Amino acid sequence: MDGKTYSLIENYMASCMDDSAHDKEHIYRVLYNALDIAETESRVDQDILITACLLHDIGRGEQLRNPNVCHALAGGDMAYKFLTENGFGADFAENVRHCIRAHRFRKSEPPQSMEAKILFDADKLDVSGAVGIARTLIYRGTVGEPIYSVLSDGTVSDGTDDTESSFFKEYKFKLEKLYDKFYTQRGWELAKNRRKHAVEFYGNLLGEVRESYEKGRERLSEIIMPSDIQTDNQKGE
Amino acid sequence: MDGKTYSLIENYMASCMDDSAHDKEHIYRVLYNALDIAETESRVDQDILITACLLHDIGRGEQLRNPNVCHALAGGDMAYKFLTENGFGADFAENVRHCIRAHRFRKSEPPQSMEAKILFDADKLDVSGAVGIARTLIYRGTVGEPIYSVLSDGTVSDGTDDTESSFFKEYKFKLEKLYDKFYTQRGWELAKNRRKHAVEFYGNLLGEVRESYEKGRERLSEIIMPSDIQTDNQKGE
Repeated sequence: MDGKTYSLIENYMASCMDDSAHDKEHIYRVLYNALDIAETESRVDQDILITACLLHDIGRGEQLRNPNVCHALAGGDMAYKFLTENGFGADFAENVRHCIRAHRFRKSEPPQSMEAKILFDADKLDVSGAVGIARTLIYRGTVGEPIYSVLSDGTVSDGTDDTESSFFKEYKFKLEKLYDKFYTQRGWELAKNRRKHAVEFYGNLLGEVRESYEKGRERLSEIIMPSDIQTDNQKGE
Repeated sequence: MDGKTYSLIENYMASCMDDSAHDKEHIYRVLYNALDIAETESRVDQDILITACLLHDIGRGEQLRNPNVCHALAGGDMAYKFLTENGFGADFAENVRHCIRAHRFRKSEPPQSMEAKILFDADKLDVSGAVGIARTLIYRGTVGEPIYSVLSDGTVSDGTDDTESSFFKEYKFKLEKLYDKFYTQRGWELAKNRRKHAVEFYGNLLGEVRESYEKGRERLSEIIMPSDIQTDNQKGE
């Protein structure tokens, strides 16, 4: 791919991106992860891979405006249209569309081509380790969700079996489980190396918060007297 | 303090809270931190301390609506008004107001009373360690700021001397420096114990991202050919 073509695709990508958890820097990390994985695989079309990486999240805006839209399906169609309208061949555009459609879920349209498998892994890598923690926390902020839920007995939930949305729930339901879901050996290795960064952070955060609540609630219950043995003039003075 | 009075103040606090980084759970962590610190100090008025902890961020909403408002000053006045209107004495309300006014900055109105010093430390503690990292990232999400800035040479900034807002800038300007700013020995000890959680996470995140960029940009520059030696029909196929 030449520099002019790269810039054309890059500029289209930049014009489509907005919220900070899926901002442009996510796109470059996915592209760089993909180029790393590609070095260990044979028969990779680098042009398809680079184009698919750059354009894989361009459907995010549409999904944000209408939650019924899947950004992978919408983005695939947007990419196909953009590419064919800009002089790329239909086969090339179709290959890129498959990569983008298949990058989100394993079940609905599994990645078939090597480029689609690499994009899938490169994208999942950006949810692993410390970077996955950071992106997940930033996303909680954009949608106004808390770090954790407090259970009915007053203790801090670790996220397991939570019904209310929170960072700990997302960690337990998604981040903790992603490490066995890679298509490439290199993707799995990179994720495995980062895994302990995420595990440590989650453990440290849970430990800090639980210690604070456990001892704090005990201290508070020793101070606050039941109302029925109090009179009004004992109010705060 | 009796349970009825505690509930009255707690309910007023709950009615004032909104965004998730300064949500109700922050208030309880600060209260629990404060009760921990209070055990190691003499001459602490627990009623003043508990009331000031519960009400210390009630001015956040006003600051959010008008950035020229300081939530510490506004919150102090709101607390004074609420307390005197609900049968608490003027001295008690004034002591609580001082704690709240003094909890934000060391310079404008430094904490004078023991309760004010404890609230200051308990609030700073909630910016230390993993919990400080989590709250700071969530806040970046609410205001739409990224994790890091990319410098003009294409490398990832570690946050030092950054002009653009980001998580790394906030870490370097605020989180990294807070550990020598405690009034109480116990506050400092608790922060020191958590410090390594924050240092490790920042180092892991920076390492993951920098490695990805460094190698990725090198690989990309080997693939993308300068445009002037390319012809149009080499576009992507």
